[in-house]
Amino acid sequence: MDYTNYIARVDNYPEPGIIFRDITPLMGNGPAFEAATQEIVDYAKELQVDMVVGPEARGFIIGCPVAYALGVGFAPVRKKGKLPRETIEVDYSLEYGSNILQIHKDAIQPGQRVLITDDLLATGGTIQATIQLVENLGGIVAGCAFLIELDDLKGREKLAGHDYFTLMHY
Amino acid sequence: MDYTNYIARVDNYPEPGIIFRDITPLMGNGPAFEAATQEIVDYAKELQVDMVVGPEARGFIIGCPVAYALGVGFAPVRKKGKLPRETIEVDYSLEYGSNILQIHKDAIQPGQRVLITDDLLATGGTIQATIQLVENLGGIVAGCAFLIELDDLKGREKLAGHDYFTLMHY
Repeated sequence: MDYTNYIARVDNYPEPGIIFRDITPLMGNGPAFEAATQEIVDYAKELQVDMVVGPEARGFIIGCPVAYALGVGFAPVRKKGKLPRETIEVDYSLEYGSNILQIHKDAIQPGQRVLITDDLLATGGTIQATIQLVENLGGIVAGCAFLIELDDLKGREKLAGHDYFTLMHY
Repeated sequence: MDYTNYIARVDNYPEPGIIFRDITPLMGNGPAFEAATQEIVDYAKELQVDMVVGPEARGFIIGCPVAYALGVGFAPVRKKGKLPRETIEVDYSLEYGSNILQIHKDAIQPGQRVLITDDLLATGGTIQATIQLVENLGGIVAGCAFLIELDDLKGREKLAGHDYFTLMHY
């Protein structure tokens, strides 16, 4: 299946000069959503993961069906203040300013093998912060999976040698 | 399975006097997450739905695995400014102030049967707005599904007679 048929190109979003790749048509098409999810499930099966972790909110869209299909749990990574119990956090810089991501302290047990999911690998800041959260809890990042990689932005360099899978490249 | 064993009680969150029911331990436990999702899948099968719709972000956690398991698409409802293409919106009031929810204009085709999912049915404001968005696009709300209903808050009265399913009551 050529999944790029289900990705909408949105020019000048979220700001002038940016080309946004919108995954909502892919999610909205039953057979395409099922097939795309299944490709990530197949990748994850090889990795023998115990947990799936994804940053809000589009990381949930991929990560939750993958966790369900594998029969493992899912732990959300969220922006500061959105998780109700004790958390650890990582502060990472954006082009302008910075962002804080958190995970519950009991979300991962030491030694658990973790798959990290997100819709898009761009500059890699979010995924780098998510890897750090998982590793700070003693988890092992077995791999990362994305629907889309924006190759020119070189986010793969932020993965610090971790195994990863991408369904589409732009 | 007694799913309430996997719901954490958090007192005084997000503000003093509120008891928050946290679903993250349920999501984090593979067998519990799978069984809970399956119960909603079984409910949805009876309804013969064409699409699943969920409000961000916890509505994605339930809705995406259910859509995947049913082989249908998922359409996100998001806060204003988070969806990149043409949207319709609904403004609904909260205890203090108001909130705007949006859905892509092409997310639902007229006549499609829709399941709406969210983690929690509390006062019902979010679900009422989501029903309105689906109906404004010509969709048929076949049913709504929640992990938790807070019975005293009477959110069910906002469902306007639509069929619904809840896994747990508090």
